[in-house]
Amino acid sequence: MSVGIGTLAVIGVGLIGGSLARALRAADYVDEVIGCGRSKANLDEALALGVIDRYTHDAAAAAADADVVFLAMPLGAMRETFAAIRNALPAHALVTDAGSAKGSVVADCQAAAPALLPRLIPGHPIAGTEKNGVAASLADLYRGRRVILTPLEGNDPEAVARVREMWQVCGADVSEMSVAHHDEVLAATSHLPHMLAFGLVDMLARLKANDEVFRYAAGGFRDFTRIASSNPVMWRDICIANRKALGPMLAGFAEEMNELALRIDSADADALLAIFERAKAARDRYVDGL
Amino acid sequence: MSVGIGTLAVIGVGLIGGSLARALRAADYVDEVIGCGRSKANLDEALALGVIDRYTHDAAAAAADADVVFLAMPLGAMRETFAAIRNALPAHALVTDAGSAKGSVVADCQAAAPALLPRLIPGHPIAGTEKNGVAASLADLYRGRRVILTPLEGNDPEAVARVREMWQVCGADVSEMSVAHHDEVLAATSHLPHMLAFGLVDMLARLKANDEVFRYAAGGFRDFTRIASSNPVMWRDICIANRKALGPMLAGFAEEMNELALRIDSADADALLAIFERAKAARDRYVDGL
Repeated sequence: MSVGIGTLAVIGVGLIGGSLARALRAADYVDEVIGCGRSKANLDEALALGVIDRYTHDAAAAAADADVVFLAMPLGAMRETFAAIRNALPAHALVTDAGSAKGSVVADCQAAAPALLPRLIPGHPIAGTEKNGVAASLADLYRGRRVILTPLEGNDPEAVARVREMWQVCGADVSEMSVAHHDEVLAATSHLPHMLAFGLVDMLARLKANDEVFRYAAGGFRDFTRIASSNPVMWRDICIANRKALGPMLAGFAEEMNELALRIDSADADALLAIFERAKAARDRYVDGL
Repeated sequence: MSVGIGTLAVIGVGLIGGSLARALRAADYVDEVIGCGRSKANLDEALALGVIDRYTHDAAAAAADADVVFLAMPLGAMRETFAAIRNALPAHALVTDAGSAKGSVVADCQAAAPALLPRLIPGHPIAGTEKNGVAASLADLYRGRRVILTPLEGNDPEAVARVREMWQVCGADVSEMSVAHHDEVLAATSHLPHMLAFGLVDMLARLKANDEVFRYAAGGFRDFTRIASSNPVMWRDICIANRKALGPMLAGFAEEMNELALRIDSADADALLAIFERAKAARDRYVDGL
Protein backbone atom coordinates (compact mmCIF):
# COMPACT_ATOMS: atom_id res chain seq x y z
CA MET A 1 0.00 0.00 0.00
CA SER A 2 1.32 3.36 -1.04
CA VAL A 3 0.50 6.42 0.96
CA GLY A 4 -0.86 5.77 4.39
CA ILE A 5 -2.37 8.30 6.74
CA GLY A 6 -0.31 10.60 8.93
CA THR A 7 -2.84 11.51 11.59
CA LEU A 8 -6.32 10.00 11.75
CA ALA A 9 -8.94 11.73 13.88
CA VAL A 10 -11.69 9.37 15.00
CA ILE A 11 -14.76 11.25 16.21
CA GLY A 12 -16.74 8.72 18.21
CA VAL A 13 -14.43 5.99 19.49
CA GLY A 14 -16.83 3.06 19.75
CA LEU A 15 -17.10 -0.30 18.01
CA ILE A 16 -16.89 1.20 14.50
CA GLY A 17 -14.36 3.97 15.10
CA GLY A 18 -12.23 1.83 17.39
CA SER A 19 -12.16 -1.05 14.93
CA LEU A 20 -10.97 1.20 12.08
CA ALA A 21 -8.18 2.57 14.28
CA ARG A 22 -7.14 -0.93 15.36
CA ALA A 23 -7.14 -2.24 11.78
CA LEU A 24 -5.07 0.65 10.41
CA ARG A 25 -2.60 0.42 13.28
CA ALA A 26 -2.29 -3.33 12.83
CA ALA A 27 -1.47 -2.69 9.14
CA ASP A 28 0.97 0.09 10.08
CA TYR A 29 -1.01 2.37 7.79
CA VAL A 30 -1.43 5.26 10.23
CA ASP A 31 1.15 7.21 12.24
CA GLU A 32 -1.10 8.66 14.90
CA VAL A 33 -4.72 8.30 16.01
CA ILE A 34 -6.50 11.10 17.86
CA GLY A 35 -9.72 10.09 19.59
CA CYS A 36 -12.56 12.51 20.17
CA GLY A 37 -15.79 12.06 22.09
CA ARG A 38 -17.79 13.18 25.09
CA SER A 39 -17.07 10.43 27.58
CA LYS A 40 -13.73 10.70 29.39
CA ALA A 41 -14.11 7.15 30.68
CA ASN A 42 -14.52 5.75 27.15
CA LEU A 43 -11.57 7.73 25.81
CA ASP A 44 -9.39 6.66 28.75
CA GLU A 45 -10.34 3.07 27.96
CA ALA A 46 -9.47 3.55 24.28
CA LEU A 47 -6.12 4.97 25.34
CA ALA A 48 -5.48 2.10 27.75
CA LEU A 49 -6.36 -0.42 25.03
CA GLY A 50 -3.88 1.26 22.66
CA VAL A 51 -6.64 2.06 20.16
CA ILE A 52 -5.78 5.79 20.16
CA ASP A 53 -2.61 7.76 20.95
CA ARG A 54 -4.25 10.79 22.53
CA TYR A 55 -7.65 12.39 22.82
CA THR A 56 -9.59 15.60 23.06
CA HIS A 57 -13.24 16.42 23.73
CA ASP A 58 -13.06 19.15 21.10
CA ALA A 59 -13.85 18.03 17.55
CA ALA A 60 -12.28 21.19 16.09
CA ALA A 61 -9.00 20.50 17.86
CA ALA A 62 -9.03 16.88 16.64
CA ALA A 63 -9.76 17.94 13.06
CA ALA A 64 -7.09 20.69 13.11
CA ASP A 65 -4.32 18.10 13.44
CA ALA A 66 -5.83 15.49 11.10
CA ASP A 67 -5.07 14.26 7.60
CA VAL A 68 -8.23 12.16 7.65
CA VAL A 69 -11.25 12.70 9.89
CA PHE A 70 -13.47 9.65 10.46
CA LEU A 71 -16.95 10.45 11.74
CA ALA A 72 -18.25 7.48 13.71
CA MET A 73 -20.75 9.07 16.07
CA PRO A 74 -24.52 8.42 15.96
CA LEU A 75 -26.15 10.10 12.97
CA GLY A 76 -27.90 12.54 15.26
CA ALA A 77 -24.57 14.19 16.09
CA MET A 78 -23.41 14.69 12.49
CA ARG A 79 -24.68 18.20 11.90
CA GLU A 80 -23.15 19.71 15.03
CA THR A 81 -19.86 17.95 14.29
CA PHE A 82 -19.71 19.35 10.75
CA ALA A 83 -20.33 22.79 12.25
CA ALA A 84 -17.59 22.23 14.84
CA ILE A 85 -14.88 21.17 12.39
CA ARG A 86 -15.90 23.54 9.58
CA ASN A 87 -13.19 26.11 10.15
CA ALA A 88 -10.59 23.83 11.69
CA LEU A 89 -9.94 21.22 8.98
CA PRO A 90 -6.58 21.66 7.19
CA ALA A 91 -6.93 22.31 3.46
CA HIS A 92 -5.43 18.96 2.44
CA ALA A 93 -7.50 16.85 4.86
CA LEU A 94 -10.41 14.56 4.00
CA VAL A 95 -13.57 13.70 5.90
CA THR A 96 -15.30 10.36 5.68
CA ASP A 97 -17.90 8.70 7.87
CA ALA A 98 -19.59 5.44 8.81
CA GLY A 99 -23.21 6.55 8.90
CA SER A 100 -25.84 3.89 8.14
CA ALA A 101 -27.77 6.43 6.07
CA LYS A 102 -26.00 8.64 3.57
CA GLY A 103 -28.55 11.20 2.39
CA SER A 104 -28.84 12.70 5.84
CA VAL A 105 -25.05 12.97 6.26
CA VAL A 106 -24.76 14.85 2.99
CA ALA A 107 -27.69 17.09 3.97
CA ASP A 108 -26.10 17.78 7.36
CA CYS A 109 -22.80 18.75 5.75
CA GLN A 110 -24.61 20.91 3.20
CA ALA A 111 -26.48 22.68 5.99
CA ALA A 112 -23.67 23.10 8.53
CA ALA A 113 -20.49 23.22 6.44
CA PRO A 114 -21.20 23.47 2.69
CA ALA A 115 -17.56 24.32 1.97
CA LEU A 116 -16.55 20.87 3.24
CA LEU A 117 -18.78 18.97 0.78
CA PRO A 118 -16.08 18.49 -1.89
CA ARG A 119 -13.85 16.91 0.76
CA LEU A 120 -16.56 14.67 2.27
CA ILE A 121 -16.36 11.12 0.89
CA PRO A 122 -19.42 9.45 2.47
CA GLY A 123 -18.95 5.82 3.41
CA HIS A 124 -20.68 2.96 5.17
CA PRO A 125 -18.96 -0.18 6.45
CA ILE A 126 -21.56 -3.00 6.51
CA ALA A 127 -20.27 -4.44 9.74
CA GLY A 128 -21.01 -4.37 13.40
CA THR A 129 -22.58 -6.44 16.08
CA GLU A 130 -25.25 -5.70 18.64
CA LYS A 131 -22.39 -4.80 21.00
CA ASN A 132 -21.19 -1.25 21.53
CA GLY A 133 -18.17 0.59 22.79
CA VAL A 134 -14.46 0.59 22.21
CA ALA A 135 -14.00 -2.53 24.33
CA ALA A 136 -15.88 -4.49 21.65
CA SER A 137 -13.76 -3.11 18.79
CA LEU A 138 -11.69 -5.54 16.73
CA ALA A 139 -8.79 -5.15 14.30
CA ASP A 140 -10.47 -7.60 11.94
CA LEU A 141 -14.07 -6.38 12.16
CA TYR A 142 -13.95 -5.24 8.53
CA ARG A 143 -12.05 -8.18 7.08
CA GLY A 144 -14.10 -9.66 4.24
CA ARG A 145 -16.98 -7.23 4.92
CA ARG A 146 -18.44 -4.80 2.44
CA VAL A 147 -17.88 -1.05 2.59
CA ILE A 148 -20.03 1.15 0.41
CA LEU A 149 -18.72 4.55 -0.67
CA THR A 150 -21.17 7.07 -2.12
CA PRO A 151 -18.90 9.66 -3.74
CA LEU A 152 -20.37 13.11 -4.41
CA GLU A 153 -20.17 15.11 -7.63
CA GLY A 154 -17.61 17.54 -6.30
CA ASN A 155 -15.26 14.87 -4.90
CA ASP A 156 -11.72 14.64 -6.22
CA PRO A 157 -11.28 11.10 -7.63
CA GLU A 158 -7.92 10.91 -5.87
CA ALA A 159 -9.60 11.60 -2.54
CA VAL A 160 -12.11 8.81 -3.20
CA ALA A 161 -9.20 6.50 -4.02
CA ARG A 162 -7.52 7.36 -0.71
CA VAL A 163 -10.63 6.44 1.26
CA ARG A 164 -11.06 3.28 -0.79
CA GLU A 165 -7.46 2.28 -0.02
CA MET A 166 -7.94 2.97 3.69
CA TRP A 167 -10.78 0.43 3.78
CA GLN A 168 -8.99 -2.08 1.58
CA VAL A 169 -6.10 -2.00 4.04
CA CYS A 170 -8.64 -3.15 6.66
CA GLY A 171 -9.49 -6.13 4.44
CA ALA A 172 -12.84 -4.76 3.30
CA ASP A 173 -14.48 -5.26 -0.08
CA VAL A 174 -15.20 -1.69 -1.27
CA SER A 175 -17.93 -0.77 -3.75
CA GLU A 176 -19.55 2.47 -4.87
CA MET A 177 -23.14 3.50 -5.46
CA SER A 178 -25.23 6.65 -5.35
CA VAL A 179 -26.41 8.12 -2.07
CA ALA A 180 -30.06 7.47 -2.93
CA HIS A 181 -29.47 3.89 -3.98
CA HIS A 182 -27.48 3.17 -0.83
CA ASP A 183 -30.30 4.47 1.30
CA GLU A 184 -32.86 2.28 -0.50
CA VAL A 185 -30.75 -0.85 -0.29
CA LEU A 186 -29.97 -0.39 3.39
CA ALA A 187 -33.58 0.43 4.21
CA ALA A 188 -34.50 -2.97 2.75
CA THR A 189 -31.76 -5.18 4.15
CA SER A 190 -30.96 -3.58 7.47
CA HIS A 191 -33.29 -0.83 8.64
CA LEU A 192 -36.53 -2.67 7.90
CA PRO A 193 -35.43 -5.93 9.61
CA HIS A 194 -34.42 -3.93 12.68
CA MET A 195 -37.86 -2.31 12.78
CA LEU A 196 -39.51 -5.75 12.59
CA ALA A 197 -37.38 -7.14 15.39
CA PHE A 198 -37.80 -4.10 17.66
CA GLY A 199 -41.52 -3.97 16.85
CA LEU A 200 -42.10 -7.66 17.51
CA VAL A 201 -40.28 -7.72 20.84
CA ASP A 202 -42.00 -4.52 21.95
CA MET A 203 -45.41 -5.92 20.99
CA LEU A 204 -44.77 -9.19 22.87
CA ALA A 205 -43.40 -7.33 25.89
CA ARG A 206 -46.70 -5.43 26.11
CA LEU A 207 -48.80 -8.62 26.18
CA LYS A 208 -50.46 -9.37 29.50
CA ALA A 209 -48.61 -12.62 30.07
CA ASN A 210 -45.32 -11.49 28.55
CA ASP A 211 -43.06 -13.40 30.94
CA GLU A 212 -44.73 -16.63 29.97
CA VAL A 213 -44.66 -15.78 26.29
CA PHE A 214 -40.90 -15.28 26.34
CA ARG A 215 -40.43 -18.44 28.42
CA TYR A 216 -41.84 -20.58 25.62
CA ALA A 217 -39.87 -18.90 22.85
CA ALA A 218 -37.72 -21.39 20.94
CA GLY A 219 -34.20 -21.11 19.58
CA GLY A 220 -35.33 -19.48 16.36
CA PHE A 221 -36.73 -16.60 18.38
CA ARG A 222 -33.36 -15.85 19.89
CA ASP A 223 -31.72 -15.50 16.46
CA PHE A 224 -34.68 -13.65 15.00
CA THR A 225 -34.67 -11.03 17.73
CA ARG A 226 -30.92 -10.62 18.20
CA ILE A 227 -30.94 -7.28 16.38
CA ALA A 228 -33.56 -5.99 18.85
CA SER A 229 -30.69 -5.86 21.36
CA SER A 230 -29.02 -3.14 19.26
CA ASN A 231 -28.35 0.37 20.53
CA PRO A 232 -31.69 2.26 20.76
CA VAL A 233 -30.14 5.72 20.32
CA MET A 234 -28.27 4.67 17.22
CA TRP A 235 -31.43 3.19 15.73
CA ARG A 236 -33.58 6.18 16.61
CA ASP A 237 -31.10 8.28 14.65
CA ILE A 238 -30.96 5.88 11.70
CA CYS A 239 -34.76 5.75 11.41
CA ILE A 240 -35.05 9.49 11.35
CA ALA A 241 -32.04 9.98 9.09
CA ASN A 242 -33.33 7.49 6.52
CA ARG A 243 -37.04 8.13 6.96
CA LYS A 244 -37.61 8.93 3.29
CA ALA A 245 -36.60 5.42 2.24
CA LEU A 246 -37.63 3.54 5.39
CA GLY A 247 -41.12 4.96 5.89
CA PRO A 248 -42.55 3.66 2.59
CA MET A 249 -40.68 0.36 2.98
CA LEU A 250 -42.29 -0.18 6.38
CA ALA A 251 -45.73 0.77 5.13
CA GLY A 252 -45.24 -1.65 2.22
CA PHE A 253 -44.32 -4.41 4.62
CA ALA A 254 -47.40 -3.74 6.75
CA GLU A 255 -49.46 -4.11 3.57
CA GLU A 256 -47.72 -7.45 2.89
CA MET A 257 -48.59 -8.64 6.37
CA ASN A 258 -52.21 -7.63 5.94
CA GLU A 259 -52.38 -9.64 2.73
CA LEU A 260 -50.74 -12.59 4.42
CA ALA A 261 -53.25 -12.33 7.28
CA LEU A 262 -56.09 -12.48 4.72
CA ARG A 263 -54.60 -15.57 3.08
CA ILE A 264 -54.23 -17.22 6.46
CA ASP A 265 -57.79 -16.31 7.48
CA SER A 266 -59.11 -17.81 4.25
CA ALA A 267 -56.82 -20.87 4.55
CA ASP A 268 -55.45 -20.23 1.05
CA ALA A 269 -53.01 -23.15 1.11
CA ASP A 270 -51.61 -22.71 -2.41
CA ALA A 271 -50.85 -19.01 -2.00
CA LEU A 272 -49.20 -19.57 1.39
CA LEU A 273 -47.06 -22.40 0.06
CA ALA A 274 -45.97 -20.26 -2.90
CA ILE A 275 -44.88 -17.41 -0.60
CA PHE A 276 -42.97 -19.70 1.76
CA GLU A 277 -41.30 -21.58 -1.10
CA ARG A 278 -40.18 -18.36 -2.80
CA ALA A 279 -38.81 -17.07 0.49
CA LYS A 280 -37.00 -20.28 1.36
CA ALA A 281 -35.44 -20.46 -2.11
CA ALA A 282 -34.25 -16.84 -1.91
CA ARG A 283 -32.89 -17.24 1.60
CA ASP A 284 -31.08 -20.49 0.80
CA ARG A 285 -29.60 -18.88 -2.34
CA TYR A 286 -28.46 -15.89 -0.29
CA VAL A 287 -26.75 -18.05 2.33
CA ASP A 288 -25.12 -20.23 -0.33
CA GLY A 289 -23.78 -17.04 -1.87
CA LEU A 290 -22.04 -15.94 1.34
CA MET B 1 -37.90 -44.37 35.46
CA SER B 2 -40.63 -46.87 36.07
CA VAL B 3 -42.62 -48.23 33.19
CA GLY B 4 -41.10 -47.67 29.80
CA ILE B 5 -42.75 -48.27 26.47
CA GLY B 6 -42.99 -51.67 24.83
CA THR B 7 -43.57 -50.69 21.22
CA LEU B 8 -43.51 -47.10 20.00
CA ALA B 9 -45.03 -46.33 16.60
CA VAL B 10 -43.61 -43.16 15.07
CA ILE B 11 -45.80 -41.84 12.27
CA GLY B 12 -43.58 -39.44 10.33
CA VAL B 13 -39.94 -40.35 10.90
CA GLY B 14 -38.27 -36.97 10.40
CA LEU B 15 -36.32 -34.63 12.65
CA ILE B 16 -38.95 -34.66 15.41
CA GLY B 17 -40.08 -38.29 15.26
CA GLY B 18 -36.56 -39.58 14.69
CA SER B 19 -35.17 -37.59 17.60
CA LEU B 20 -37.80 -38.96 20.00
CA ALA B 21 -36.98 -42.52 18.90
CA ARG B 22 -33.25 -41.92 19.28
CA ALA B 23 -33.65 -40.37 22.74
CA LEU B 24 -35.86 -43.16 24.06
CA ARG B 25 -33.56 -45.84 22.66
CA ALA B 26 -30.51 -44.13 24.15
CA ALA B 27 -32.29 -44.17 27.54
CA ASP B 28 -33.30 -47.81 27.04
CA TYR B 29 -36.89 -46.71 27.61
CA VAL B 30 -38.42 -48.42 24.59
CA ASP B 31 -38.26 -52.06 23.42
CA GLU B 32 -39.17 -51.56 19.78
CA VAL B 33 -39.75 -48.66 17.40
CA ILE B 34 -41.95 -49.04 14.31
CA GLY B 35 -41.57 -46.32 11.72
CA CYS B 36 -44.40 -45.30 9.42
CA GLY B 37 -44.41 -42.89 6.51
CA ARG B 38 -44.81 -42.52 2.77
CA SER B 39 -41.22 -42.39 1.59
CA LYS B 40 -39.47 -45.74 1.35
CA ALA B 41 -36.11 -44.01 0.95
CA ASN B 42 -36.57 -42.10 4.20
CA LEU B 43 -37.69 -45.18 6.13
CA ASP B 44 -34.79 -47.20 4.74
CA GLU B 45 -32.47 -44.45 5.94
CA ALA B 46 -34.11 -44.48 9.39
CA LEU B 47 -33.60 -48.23 9.52
CA ALA B 48 -29.97 -47.95 8.41
CA LEU B 49 -29.34 -45.28 11.05
CA GLY B 50 -30.80 -47.54 13.74
CA VAL B 51 -33.54 -45.04 14.56
CA ILE B 52 -36.30 -47.61 13.97
CA ASP B 53 -36.45 -51.42 14.12
CA ARG B 54 -38.91 -51.94 11.29
CA TYR B 55 -41.37 -50.00 9.19
CA THR B 56 -44.65 -50.02 7.35
CA HIS B 57 -46.40 -47.56 5.05
CA ASP B 58 -49.71 -48.42 6.72
CA ALA B 59 -50.55 -46.30 9.77
CA ALA B 60 -53.21 -48.80 10.90
CA ALA B 61 -50.67 -51.63 10.91
CA ALA B 62 -48.19 -49.51 12.87
CA ALA B 63 -50.83 -48.51 15.41
CA ALA B 64 -52.11 -52.08 15.79
CA ASP B 65 -48.81 -53.18 17.33
CA ALA B 66 -48.18 -50.07 19.40
CA ASP B 67 -48.33 -49.17 23.06
CA VAL B 68 -47.73 -45.54 22.24
CA VAL B 69 -48.35 -43.85 18.88
CA PHE B 70 -46.40 -40.65 18.23
CA LEU B 71 -47.80 -38.48 15.44
CA ALA B 72 -44.99 -36.43 13.94
CA MET B 73 -46.25 -35.73 10.42
CA PRO B 74 -47.15 -32.25 9.12
CA LEU B 75 -50.39 -30.95 10.63
CA GLY B 76 -52.12 -31.30 7.26
CA ALA B 77 -51.91 -35.10 7.53
CA MET B 78 -53.40 -35.39 11.03
CA ARG B 79 -57.03 -35.94 10.13
CA GLU B 80 -56.41 -38.76 7.64
CA THR B 81 -54.05 -40.44 10.12
CA PHE B 82 -56.63 -40.35 12.91
CA ALA B 83 -59.10 -41.91 10.46
CA ALA B 84 -56.55 -44.58 9.50
CA ILE B 85 -55.69 -45.69 13.04
CA ARG B 86 -59.21 -45.30 14.48
CA ASN B 87 -60.11 -48.97 14.46
CA ALA B 88 -56.61 -50.39 14.79
CA LEU B 89 -55.34 -48.94 18.06
CA PRO B 90 -55.20 -51.48 20.94
CA ALA B 91 -57.43 -50.59 23.87
CA HIS B 92 -54.53 -49.90 26.25
CA ALA B 93 -52.54 -47.75 23.80
CA LEU B 94 -52.05 -43.98 23.90
CA VAL B 95 -51.71 -41.43 21.13
CA THR B 96 -49.66 -38.27 21.46
CA ASP B 97 -48.33 -35.83 18.88
CA ALA B 98 -45.84 -33.06 18.17
CA GLY B 99 -48.06 -30.62 16.30
CA SER B 100 -47.14 -26.93 16.55
CA ALA B 101 -50.82 -26.04 16.91
CA LYS B 102 -53.05 -27.99 19.27
CA GLY B 103 -56.61 -26.84 18.58
CA SER B 104 -56.51 -28.22 15.06
CA VAL B 105 -55.17 -31.61 16.20
CA VAL B 106 -57.98 -31.95 18.70
CA ALA B 107 -60.51 -30.88 16.07
CA ASP B 108 -59.10 -33.40 13.58
CA CYS B 109 -59.35 -36.21 16.12
CA GLN B 110 -62.87 -35.12 17.05
CA ALA B 111 -63.87 -35.17 13.38
CA ALA B 112 -62.14 -38.35 12.26
CA ALA B 113 -61.95 -40.53 15.37
CA PRO B 114 -63.97 -39.11 18.28
CA ALA B 115 -63.64 -42.37 20.20
CA LEU B 116 -59.87 -41.83 20.39
CA LEU B 117 -60.14 -38.42 22.10
CA PRO B 118 -59.86 -39.75 25.67
CA ARG B 119 -56.61 -41.47 24.67
CA LEU B 120 -55.13 -38.51 22.79
CA ILE B 121 -52.68 -36.56 24.98
CA PRO B 122 -51.76 -33.59 22.77
CA GLY B 123 -48.18 -32.43 23.07
CA HIS B 124 -45.71 -30.02 21.53
CA PRO B 125 -41.93 -30.20 21.92
CA ILE B 126 -40.51 -26.67 21.50
CA ALA B 127 -37.49 -27.85 19.59
CA GLY B 128 -36.28 -28.21 16.07
CA THR B 129 -34.01 -26.56 13.61
CA GLU B 130 -34.53 -25.36 10.05
CA LYS B 131 -33.26 -28.78 8.98
CA ASN B 132 -35.56 -31.67 8.12
CA GLY B 133 -35.45 -35.40 7.81
CA VAL B 134 -34.34 -38.34 9.87
CA ALA B 135 -30.67 -37.71 9.01
CA ALA B 136 -30.88 -34.49 11.04
CA SER B 137 -32.43 -36.21 14.09
CA LEU B 138 -30.51 -36.21 17.37
CA ALA B 139 -30.80 -38.19 20.60
CA ASP B 140 -30.36 -34.98 22.59
CA LEU B 141 -32.60 -32.67 20.57
CA TYR B 142 -35.03 -32.40 23.48
CA ARG B 143 -32.49 -32.15 26.30
CA GLY B 144 -33.20 -29.00 28.29
CA ARG B 145 -35.99 -28.00 25.89
CA ARG B 146 -39.59 -27.35 26.82
CA VAL B 147 -42.41 -29.70 25.97
CA ILE B 148 -45.96 -28.44 26.42
CA LEU B 149 -48.74 -30.95 27.04
CA THR B 150 -52.34 -29.79 26.63
CA PRO B 151 -54.34 -32.56 28.34
CA LEU B 152 -58.03 -32.88 27.44
CA GLU B 153 -60.97 -33.21 29.81
CA GLY B 154 -61.48 -36.89 29.12
CA ASN B 155 -57.80 -37.87 29.56
CA ASP B 156 -56.85 -40.37 32.24
CA PRO B 157 -54.34 -38.62 34.56
CA GLU B 158 -52.22 -41.75 34.46
CA ALA B 159 -52.02 -41.55 30.68
CA VAL B 160 -50.90 -37.92 30.92
CA ALA B 161 -48.27 -38.99 33.45
CA ARG B 162 -46.98 -41.64 31.03
CA VAL B 163 -46.54 -39.09 28.24
CA ARG B 164 -44.92 -36.67 30.67
CA GLU B 165 -42.46 -39.36 31.75
CA MET B 166 -41.67 -40.22 28.13
CA TRP B 167 -40.56 -36.63 27.51
CA GLN B 168 -38.73 -36.34 30.82
CA VAL B 169 -36.71 -39.39 29.83
CA CYS B 170 -35.60 -37.37 26.79
CA GLY B 171 -34.36 -34.64 29.15
CA ALA B 172 -37.21 -32.23 28.40
CA ASP B 173 -38.81 -29.77 30.79
CA VAL B 174 -42.52 -30.64 30.62
CA SER B 175 -45.32 -28.20 31.40
CA GLU B 176 -49.07 -28.17 30.88
CA MET B 177 -51.51 -25.56 29.63
CA SER B 178 -54.85 -25.39 27.87
CA VAL B 179 -55.12 -25.97 24.13
CA ALA B 180 -56.28 -22.39 23.52
CA HIS B 181 -53.52 -20.85 25.62
CA HIS B 182 -50.89 -22.95 23.87
CA ASP B 183 -52.09 -21.76 20.50
CA GLU B 184 -51.98 -18.10 21.56
CA VAL B 185 -48.51 -18.35 23.06
CA LEU B 186 -47.07 -20.15 20.05
CA ALA B 187 -48.73 -17.76 17.61
CA ALA B 188 -46.86 -14.95 19.37
CA THR B 189 -43.43 -16.49 19.86
CA SER B 190 -43.08 -18.79 16.88
CA HIS B 191 -45.73 -18.50 14.19
CA LEU B 192 -45.71 -14.70 13.95
CA PRO B 193 -41.88 -14.45 13.75
CA HIS B 194 -41.87 -17.06 10.98
CA MET B 195 -44.43 -15.02 9.04
CA LEU B 196 -42.27 -11.90 9.38
CA ALA B 197 -39.15 -13.70 8.19
CA PHE B 198 -40.89 -15.42 5.27
CA GLY B 199 -42.71 -12.19 4.38
CA LEU B 200 -39.57 -10.05 4.50
CA VAL B 201 -37.47 -12.37 2.38
CA ASP B 202 -40.28 -12.81 -0.12
CA MET B 203 -40.76 -9.04 -0.38
CA LEU B 204 -37.04 -8.43 -0.91
CA ALA B 205 -36.83 -11.27 -3.44
CA ARG B 206 -39.52 -9.52 -5.48
CA LEU B 207 -37.60 -6.22 -5.62
CA LYS B 208 -36.22 -5.33 -9.04
CA ALA B 209 -32.60 -5.38 -7.91
CA ASN B 210 -32.97 -8.31 -5.52
CA ASP B 211 -29.56 -9.85 -6.15
CA GLU B 212 -27.89 -6.62 -5.19
CA VAL B 213 -30.10 -6.16 -2.17
CA PHE B 214 -29.11 -9.54 -0.76
CA ARG B 215 -25.45 -8.90 -1.58
CA TYR B 216 -25.37 -5.95 0.82
CA ALA B 217 -27.18 -7.71 3.64
CA ALA B 218 -25.14 -7.77 6.83
CA GLY B 219 -24.63 -10.49 9.42
CA GLY B 220 -27.75 -9.54 11.34
CA PHE B 221 -29.83 -10.32 8.27
CA ARG B 222 -28.57 -13.88 8.18
CA ASP B 223 -29.69 -14.54 11.75
CA PHE B 224 -32.92 -12.62 11.32
CA THR B 225 -33.95 -14.62 8.28
CA ARG B 226 -32.72 -18.07 9.33
CA ILE B 227 -36.28 -19.23 10.06
CA ALA B 228 -37.26 -18.32 6.47
CA SER B 229 -35.28 -21.41 5.45
CA SER B 230 -37.80 -23.61 7.29
CA ASN B 231 -39.95 -26.22 5.57
CA PRO B 232 -42.65 -24.44 3.50
CA VAL B 233 -45.14 -27.32 3.64
CA MET B 234 -44.89 -27.57 7.41
CA TRP B 235 -45.43 -23.84 7.76
CA ARG B 236 -48.33 -23.74 5.33
CA ASP B 237 -49.99 -26.35 7.55
CA ILE B 238 -49.16 -24.53 10.79
CA CYS B 239 -50.57 -21.23 9.48
CA ILE B 240 -53.82 -22.81 8.46
CA ALA B 241 -54.07 -24.99 11.57
CA ASN B 242 -53.55 -22.05 13.91
CA ARG B 243 -55.25 -19.38 11.83
CA LYS B 244 -57.66 -18.38 14.58
CA ALA B 245 -54.81 -17.23 16.81
CA LEU B 246 -52.31 -16.23 14.12
CA GLY B 247 -54.56 -14.14 11.85
CA PRO B 248 -55.39 -11.49 14.47
CA MET B 249 -51.79 -11.49 15.75
CA LEU B 250 -50.51 -10.75 12.25
CA ALA B 251 -53.08 -8.04 11.66
CA GLY B 252 -52.10 -6.52 15.02
CA PHE B 253 -48.47 -6.53 14.01
CA ALA B 254 -49.29 -4.83 10.69
CA GLU B 255 -51.04 -2.14 12.70
CA GLU B 256 -47.92 -1.75 14.87
CA MET B 257 -45.80 -1.34 11.76
CA ASN B 258 -48.15 1.29 10.37
CA GLU B 259 -47.88 3.24 13.61
CA LEU B 260 -44.11 2.90 13.58
CA ALA B 261 -44.07 4.14 9.96
CA LEU B 262 -46.05 7.21 11.06
CA ARG B 263 -43.63 7.93 13.88
CA ILE B 264 -40.70 7.58 11.49
CA ASP B 265 -42.35 9.83 8.90
CA SER B 266 -42.94 12.48 11.54
CA ALA B 267 -39.43 12.03 13.00
CA ASP B 268 -40.91 11.45 16.47
CA ALA B 269 -37.56 10.85 18.17
CA ASP B 270 -38.88 10.38 21.72
CA ALA B 271 -41.50 7.82 20.73
CA LEU B 272 -39.02 5.86 18.62
CA LEU B 273 -36.43 5.81 21.38
CA ALA B 274 -39.04 4.62 23.89
CA ILE B 275 -40.06 1.72 21.62
CA PHE B 276 -36.48 0.65 20.93
CA GLU B 277 -35.49 0.91 24.59
CA ARG B 278 -38.47 -1.17 25.73
CA ALA B 279 -37.68 -3.78 23.10
CA LYS B 280 -33.98 -3.94 23.92
CA ALA B 281 -34.71 -4.26 27.65
CA ALA B 282 -37.20 -7.08 27.04
CA ARG B 283 -34.89 -8.91 24.65
CA ASP B 284 -31.88 -8.61 26.95
CA ARG B 285 -34.01 -9.84 29.87
CA TYR B 286 -35.22 -12.78 27.80
CA VAL B 287 -31.69 -13.79 26.81
CA ASP B 288 -30.42 -13.38 30.38
CA GLY B 289 -33.22 -15.69 31.45
CA LEU B 290 -32.14 -18.48 29.10
